[in-house]
Order: sequence, then structure tokens, then C-alpha cells
Amino acid sequence: MASDQRPIVAATMGDPAGIGPEICARAFAEESVRRVSRPVLFGDARVMRKAVALVGSGLEVRVLDGPAAATGEARFLEIVDLANADPAAFRPGEVSALCGKAAWEYVEAAGRAALARKAAVVVTAPINKESIAAAKVPHIGHTEMLGAVSGVADPLTMFETLGLRVFFLTRHVSLRKACDLVTKGRLVDYIERCSAALADLGLSGPLAIAGLNPHCGEHGLFGDEEGREVEPAIAEARRRGLAVVGPIGADSVFHQAKSGRFAAVLSLYHDQGHIACKTLDFERTVSLTLGMPFLRTSVDHGTAFDIAWKAEASAVSMVEALLAGARYAPAFASDGDA
Amino acid sequence: MASDQRPIVAATMGDPAGIGPEICARAFAEESVRRVSRPVLFGDARVMRKAVALVGSGLEVRVLDGPAAATGEARFLEIVDLANADPAAFRPGEVSALCGKAAWEYVEAAGRAALARKAAVVVTAPINKESIAAAKVPHIGHTEMLGAVSGVADPLTMFETLGLRVFFLTRHVSLRKACDLVTKGRLVDYIERCSAALADLGLSGPLAIAGLNPHCGEHGLFGDEEGREVEPAIAEARRRGLAVVGPIGADSVFHQAKSGRFAAVLSLYHDQGHIACKTLDFERTVSLTLGMPFLRTSVDHGTAFDIAWKAEASAVSMVEALLAGARYAPAFASDGDA
Repeated sequence: MASDQRPIVAATMGDPAGIGPEICARAFAEESVRRVSRPVLFGDARVMRKAVALVGSGLEVRVLDGPAAATGEARFLEIVDLANADPAAFRPGEVSALCGKAAWEYVEAAGRAALARKAAVVVTAPINKESIAAAKVPHIGHTEMLGAVSGVADPLTMFETLGLRVFFLTRHVSLRKACDLVTKGRLVDYIERCSAALADLGLSGPLAIAGLNPHCGEHGLFGDEEGREVEPAIAEARRRGLAVVGPIGADSVFHQAKSGRFAAVLSLYHDQGHIACKTLDFERTVSLTLGMPFLRTSVDHGTAFDIAWKAEASAVSMVEALLAGARYAPAFASDGDA
Repeated sequence: MASDQRPIVAATMGDPAGIGPEICARAFAEESVRRVSRPVLFGDARVMRKAVALVGSGLEVRVLDGPAAATGEARFLEIVDLANADPAAFRPGEVSALCGKAAWEYVEAAGRAALARKAAVVVTAPINKESIAAAKVPHIGHTEMLGAVSGVADPLTMFETLGLRVFFLTRHVSLRKACDLVTKGRLVDYIERCSAALADLGLSGPLAIAGLNPHCGEHGLFGDEEGREVEPAIAEARRRGLAVVGPIGADSVFHQAKSGRFAAVLSLYHDQGHIACKTLDFERTVSLTLGMPFLRTSVDHGTAFDIAWKAEASAVSMVEALLAGARYAPAFASDGDA
């Protein structure tokens, strides 16, 4: 298959007790995914045989020695079998150390394969924080896990929804604290890192900076962070040769970005960017982790233990994550690529 | 026309030098608008004859004695002619006291007609703040003008975009100040007023309160306003018999509301609600002013002096404002209605 142009995409099965296996079973059967990629799952073959039977997607689970052996044939669900989650040893929808440990091992193995250039992209299904904690895994989430695997201290998160791309100056801090963190120094650092990440994705065109206050404070009438911190940071970034514009009022910058005017928006706090993406299309919001030697894309939902293994879970988000991974894979070409 | 079921909708022409006249000339010709309403314009007949010619919408400008005389015939643009803006006396795209005064007089006359139950709804085209100031009009915006006409001290603003309805706890204050204003007392007052306004519109179903911090602060981990102010306010409102739920994380509450789960969302600061509506559909975001004896709907853009009288302006927002007015008019029935 040396002439196969489709990139090899390493996906993880997620927590075996969650909706990960079934959404992988569905998403791997999608023709849109097959057309643009050769997906390889890092998981447990026994679990996936059950998941394929559950959703009736008709795929044959085929165990590979490694991602490079992927044929990409549409009838197979090709898997690197870590054989670490005996279906008899866990119950759907329940927190367990076994599943937490297994989920971490899929991420670690997929990350290492990508680091060894056996895959261009890692696409992650959801893991469960409590199961991860029960297993005493020393990393609380995917970003920390992949940061550890790749040796990158602080990877960058970007959301993408229907072509709207958003970075975050801050995430899990209070809104008051987020206001405090709008500083020139922090902004210049993020503008540099976001610009580099966009270049890694092969994207050009300006990065737009959102305002913090309504109408960017209307010249200091209600809020002065724009004049005091944001504008000086943009001026400094421009002096350094970066394509950056703003600040632009948050009530129009996402609309403008959606229309293609900017490569991405740097939002100044968690909800600013989240509201834009998730109101636009909740299920089609994909999370990308950038700044590592490989790309990671992810579903933006959890393990949904309440509906796990009932064949009810939607695979839309997993499909979008796989498609986004395939779309940007050429920028992170692996040795397995043609 | 006593048997005409279509409500009489009083529209204002806006600043004569802005894009108001041309978007009215276009919107009044829309079949979708005619099907559901009898629109009557408060403006200057000379200006509108020019605007109709400019956009080529083919309507015949017909002067009425008052809104009750409206025939609603599709070939007419029916107007209450205030004859206060001689086209020879102002220039397109320029600030002037003449246009500011004229724009205020359309709003005042339309508001008075609605107050006298000659129309159920007032739909406003954009006015220019500088022209209003030049004319020494004692009200800075539409809400203040109509509040003065109707004797209501503090009308309530609601946005509506593709069925998503959003109220605002605060608007033109800094984000830090908005955090300070998230208090139990203020919230209970707004929940009561928003609930009453929804009932006025004939809408039932719960009002959802957005969280202030990411993930509503995750039980105080990052931000405590939810536990300290928002939850007690919701509990108090429930004790008073109001249908209210929350707080719900801002990254999902608008998505859920869009899907029809809530009648509306009370957003806690300007951009929270604005980002949701305007990212979803910028042009189809309509502003409603509630809590007065009549309803007011509005375009959500300005006079756009840079493109005024060039036949370039889109009438999408004006059409949406007219349609929203007609949709809710039955709840504010006028004497002119069948």
C-alpha cells in the first residue's frame, strides 16, 4: 500500500466502560473517514468485537503488528491490540482502575507511535477522570498525557467548528482571574505560540485578538484592559513580524472569523471561545492540541457513562475529530505516508 | 379591511442619511413580510420615493392619515408622512441635526401610535448617535426614547436569533464590573422581570440562568459566584413560583436553548449573550424591547453611513425585525387588528 495517499491516523479507544468503543465502531465505518484516511485504533480487540456487534457496523476487527501495517481496507477495523481490558473484568458505565489504566495505555501507545512517525495524528476518544485517578495514572487529562509522552511542557489547545478556529488565553480559571491574566506579556507569548501553531497547520492569514470588555470598552468608557494591555501586546507582536489584528469586539470577531476573514481568533477566556464554537455547532466542535511533534484531535465530550454500551451514543463528534485529523495530517506527515 | 388578520406593524425610517430608508424600501417589498403583517412606515414620503427608486423595489409610496388606514396592499409602501426631511436639505452619510431630529420624531410618532393602540409593534431602523446629539434630543437611544414615550423607566432587552432568546443581566459595563453585579438581589429582580416579559410574549417553559465562570466554577474550584449568588437567587425565584433552572455552564446553555429546551437564557454579561446570538447568525439577530405596553423590535446594526444610499445595504436584519414583530404582535393586539 506504499502508494496509498491517505494518512495513517492513530485513534484511541478511550475508557472501555464509556461510549468510546461504540463511537469508534461507528466512526471507523464512515465512508467519509475512509475516503481521507487509514484509521488505526489503539485499544482492546475483544472490546471492539463487542462494540462492533453492538452497533452492527459490520466491520471485521483485524489485529495489526503496528500502524505501518494498516491496509485501510473499508471492511476492516484495524487495531493495535493492547489486550488490557477483558470484557469480563469491567462493567459498562462504571468507574474502575482497570479501565483507567487501559485508557491511559492506549493514549501512551498511540502517542509513542506518532512520536516515532508511524502516524501523523492522534485522535482521542473520551477517558474518565475518576477511573484515571483510581488507576493512579500520574496525568489528569489527555493534554498532560501527550505532553509527557512528547516532552512538551505546555501544549496549546485550539477549537475548530465549521471552519471557525479559536485559541484560549486562559481556560480553567474564574472569570475574575481571567481578567487579571489579560496582560501584555502573556498576550505576546500566546500570540507568538498561536502564530507558530497556525504555521504548523499550514494556515496563513492574520490571527485576530478578541476584546475583553463589551465593544472593547469603547475607548476606556467601560474597561481599560484593551488600551492598557491588549493594544500594546498587538503592537509588540507586529514589531516582531507577526500577522495579528485587533482587539475586535467579541460580539463580531467570531462572526468575522467564521466568514474566513482571519485564520483564527485568540479568545481571552474560556467561555468567550467556548460559547462561540459550541453555540455555532455543539457536536461538530473539535479540539486540537498543538505545539507537539504530532497533532492530536479529540472529541469534545466525555465518557457518558449513563448511556454507555446502549448503542445510543452519537459518533458525530468522533467522525469530526477523525476528519480534522486527516485534514491537517499532511502538515505532520509520518513515515507511513506515501 | 376589518377582516384582515394581519397585524399593523409601525416601522420607523431611521436616520434619513443612513441606510434606514433603503432597507425599509427593500424590506417592505418582501413577500414574507406582507404575508404576516400590514407594515406602516413613519418617515418622510419624499425620502422614501427616492429610496424606492434607488433600490428599484417598485412600490408606490402612499401617504396615510394614520396607521389605522393601512390597506396592507402589496403594491404600496404605506407611510405616515412627517414631512421633516427634505432630501435637498441633507447629504447621505453625513451627521446632521436635521436628520437626528427627524429620526427622533419618527420614533416618537410610532411610539405614540402604538401607545394609542393603533399598532401592536414598533420596528425601528437605525438612528445615528451623533446626529441625535447634534439635534439636542434628550434621549440617547431607542430604548430611552420609547421608555420616555411609554413612561416605562427601565425596559428590558431581549435578543432572538433562530429561536434562541437571550436576556442580559448587565450590558454596557466592564467585564470586571459585570462580575461585581452578579448579586442575588439583582438576579431575583431580573428573573422576575424576564419571566413576566416571556409571559407577555405568550411563551412558557423555563428561563435558564447561565453560569459566570467556566463550568459554573466546578463547585467553587474556579470562582464562587454560582454558589454564593446565582444558586440562592434561583432558589428564591422558585419559592416565588417562577419556572427557572440553572446555573448551566455557558458553553452548553445556549446550545440547549437553541434546541428548544428553555424559553430563554438570562446571560450574565453583555458578550456572553452577544457572542451566542451573533456567532450563530449575525444578520438574523433581532433585538426586542419588552416591559412596555407595546413591543419594539429592531435591527441590530447601525446607520452604516459609509455605504448609505448606494443600494448596497442588506435588508436581512430589517426583514427579520419585521417578522419578529409580526410573530409576537398577537400578544400586543392593537385596536386596528381584526
